[in-house]
Amino acid sequence: MAQEKKLVEDITPMSVDFAQWYTDVVKKADLMRYSSVKGCMMILPNGYAIWENIQKNLDAMFKETGVTNVYMPMFIPESLLEREKDHVEGFAPECAWVTMGGGEELEERLVVRPTSETLFCELYSNIVQSYRDLPKLYNQWCSVVRWEKTTRPFLRSSEFLWQEGHTVHATAEEAQERTEMMLNVYADFCEKYLAIPMIKGRKTDKEKFAGAEATYTIEALMHDGKALQSGTSHNFGDGFARAFGIQFTDTDNTLKYVHQTSWGLSTRTIGALIMVHGDDSGLVLPPRIAPVQVMVVPIAQHKEGVLEKAQEIYETLKAQGISVQLDDSKKSPGWKFAEQEIKGIPLRVEIGPKDLENGQAVVVRRDTREKITVALAELTEQIPQIMEKMQQDMYDRALKHREEHTYDAHDYEEFKDIIANKPGFVRAMWCGDQACELKIKEDTTATSRCMPFKQEHIADTCVCCGRPAKTMVYWGKAY
Amino acid sequence: MAQEKKLVEDITPMSVDFAQWYTDVVKKADLMRYSSVKGCMMILPNGYAIWENIQKNLDAMFKETGVTNVYMPMFIPESLLEREKDHVEGFAPECAWVTMGGGEELEERLVVRPTSETLFCELYSNIVQSYRDLPKLYNQWCSVVRWEKTTRPFLRSSEFLWQEGHTVHATAEEAQERTEMMLNVYADFCEKYLAIPMIKGRKTDKEKFAGAEATYTIEALMHDGKALQSGTSHNFGDGFARAFGIQFTDTDNTLKYVHQTSWGLSTRTIGALIMVHGDDSGLVLPPRIAPVQVMVVPIAQHKEGVLEKAQEIYETLKAQGISVQLDDSKKSPGWKFAEQEIKGIPLRVEIGPKDLENGQAVVVRRDTREKITVALAELTEQIPQIMEKMQQDMYDRALKHREEHTYDAHDYEEFKDIIANKPGFVRAMWCGDQACELKIKEDTTATSRCMPFKQEHIADTCVCCGRPAKTMVYWGKAY
Repeated sequence: MAQEKKLVEDITPMSVDFAQWYTDVVKKADLMRYSSVKGCMMILPNGYAIWENIQKNLDAMFKETGVTNVYMPMFIPESLLEREKDHVEGFAPECAWVTMGGGEELEERLVVRPTSETLFCELYSNIVQSYRDLPKLYNQWCSVVRWEKTTRPFLRSSEFLWQEGHTVHATAEEAQERTEMMLNVYADFCEKYLAIPMIKGRKTDKEKFAGAEATYTIEALMHDGKALQSGTSHNFGDGFARAFGIQFTDTDNTLKYVHQTSWGLSTRTIGALIMVHGDDSGLVLPPRIAPVQVMVVPIAQHKEGVLEKAQEIYETLKAQGISVQLDDSKKSPGWKFAEQEIKGIPLRVEIGPKDLENGQAVVVRRDTREKITVALAELTEQIPQIMEKMQQDMYDRALKHREEHTYDAHDYEEFKDIIANKPGFVRAMWCGDQACELKIKEDTTATSRCMPFKQEHIADTCVCCGRPAKTMVYWGKAY
Repeated sequence: MAQEKKLVEDITPMSVDFAQWYTDVVKKADLMRYSSVKGCMMILPNGYAIWENIQKNLDAMFKETGVTNVYMPMFIPESLLEREKDHVEGFAPECAWVTMGGGEELEERLVVRPTSETLFCELYSNIVQSYRDLPKLYNQWCSVVRWEKTTRPFLRSSEFLWQEGHTVHATAEEAQERTEMMLNVYADFCEKYLAIPMIKGRKTDKEKFAGAEATYTIEALMHDGKALQSGTSHNFGDGFARAFGIQFTDTDNTLKYVHQTSWGLSTRTIGALIMVHGDDSGLVLPPRIAPVQVMVVPIAQHKEGVLEKAQEIYETLKAQGISVQLDDSKKSPGWKFAEQEIKGIPLRVEIGPKDLENGQAVVVRRDTREKITVALAELTEQIPQIMEKMQQDMYDRALKHREEHTYDAHDYEEFKDIIANKPGFVRAMWCGDQACELKIKEDTTATSRCMPFKQEHIADTCVCCGRPAKTMVYWGKAY
């Protein structure tokens, strides 16, 4: 079957060229295409369906914490963006500017939102007057634009989809609590649905968000040993509130500034899914986030009763609430298998004449290719269990991979050696001086990923300068 | 209670000034705010929750017809927009242009999508090769930008939210079938969920979409007798396919152009909801689309057992899958009633000490203010029934209003008299000549709304010129 072979051979093996493998999988699984708009993606049905599942589940988790959705304009007047100094400095270089509208030059040019802190500030400055109006817990699902010179599917593009939550609170404590709460929501979501274990921690000042007092992050390790920042949560203190005049009358009748947070997670997480779970045959999707969970494939479907039974299995699983497809096309079984594997559909149910005779079907797990013979009468009970097992196994494997690729460095020689030769996270102590961060990046291209909440004592001194250490930091090369 | 009175008095009565009433309701119900970006809306939680319900239900109807979602870039290169002549002429005057990105002048300016036909054409020209690749049935939920000088909340703004479906087919028949199918989906959705009856028909050439062969529309009548175009479905024939070279090899091994459709429905429908169902106390939402369906209000909540019972009712209804809120704030009942009414929450459940004694609650319908005493034991059974009755009554009332405000004109004097004195639809015959359409608009400001599928014979001659008539047309002043 030359065609089948071709379908798989078109994917460059991971071990040969990881970057090419990634591009091939994205293309072969029909997740996205580039358009004639430089750096912008067309997200195709297979890719967008993953995002829809991310949205659905994450949005429900947001709402459980009291968050409601809104929609803000996609344009920000230049003067509004400039109101907070650090913020505009951070974003101005990546901005896309609208200068003409309705056939006329605009009096003030508009930036296509790179993020919407300034618009939310404008809104909050109008609708918050009293402590009774607090907190405000708003979120929006939208796309944002950050002009990029070099792009990679889902990981870096000039336009990408995300959600951005923006909250205002009466006290600093409450804002801090919300900042950490949303980071935990992200980590729980990624671990529970995407089967990706996360390191939770705080960014160094060098790596924090433009305008934030503190940025918190969840960091994941990809299959190639590079890190991927997968979601961030920021505490702004009252910096934006002062710049935008967001004040309220508190219970004690005095005027106070609100304390503010924002937090975002984007289509990057689709990149994480691919690079954590994928293999040389294509995508491998965790059952809880897979748009299609089961593909039923009839074998020798011209034989009596096969297609009918396949149809029956399809109907039964569908009625059970499982997302299932039946491939009754005239393609060969091998071709159908290859297609199902490339798309990362978690389970394949094979049913052929012999299976019919024996009253059974063969369930094949996408992650391990394990073949499980299941009596037809037990399919509805077994399939959810097999999916749950697969979900857990995928998480466990990703965790094991991360643990096996996390190294402790006690001095700078060891640090440099690990970065050069062992792809993964490096845990090492840091004095807190940005000069050391810069030197490490200069010497090794590795960056500080985060100061983890779970601190450990690896050495007394900074891995770079040898002065007394303050914090343990996760370092790594990153996407 | 001066404050309560104020809450309601702030809404200008419909009969005094319908436009002001509309603006007041939008503001008092906290649906949206204008921002410092001219003509762009901030859609607030109460407004966005309605859009979320529209999305959820309409998206499910799309998917039942085989449609899948994608996401396309928000930018379109000028050269791509210009590929189809009629299309660019139609949209160029309302375009917003990005001319700077990443700190540099762009080589080619980009338009912020006013609609995405051209991008979908680019995609289809790349991914469609054979009849096996057809049909493609893609849709996206996004915002679009059409620069507007004068704006009205939800009805006309420079940026608005919508969905745009774009399909390609092997034959002209199939494209026509899909065009009509999606118009029917829109009409069914609006009638079933929004309780708004629709006139289905075809637009005249003057009113059709830029680049379309035929545009179909659903038209609704607002409370003030003005028409609102609520959704459109276009058949492009092979015009775009020829301009963009979208060809496929058919079963007979010859190369053919695809036939194409597109269809859209926007946040305008929120405007329709307000203007069809609202009253002088605020919004009135049909139960099937209301983000909150029931508000439980305890009366004399300091009295023993009242708050507990209110909480119990809340929990029971919630467990039943009803979207319910409990207002246990310290505001007066009158204030709570006014707030619930302004927001258009369909049912209010009042529970006070006397109700407790009698083992009952009082259910108040938002649309009729009918008070229905229901035994507590029967609440879970009664409330869904009352909501279904309310939904149907709202539809029936809207239909009755439309029928009572639809007039037949047999000659031009009668036509002009109706337009001048009787707000509503006018049904009249038309010769098919655009000159008559232009004259009618010039003389009366009324426009042709559609040539309805359900044709009737009102007269032999055109209402404007007296020549032989070809078609019955719905005319009206429109938003």
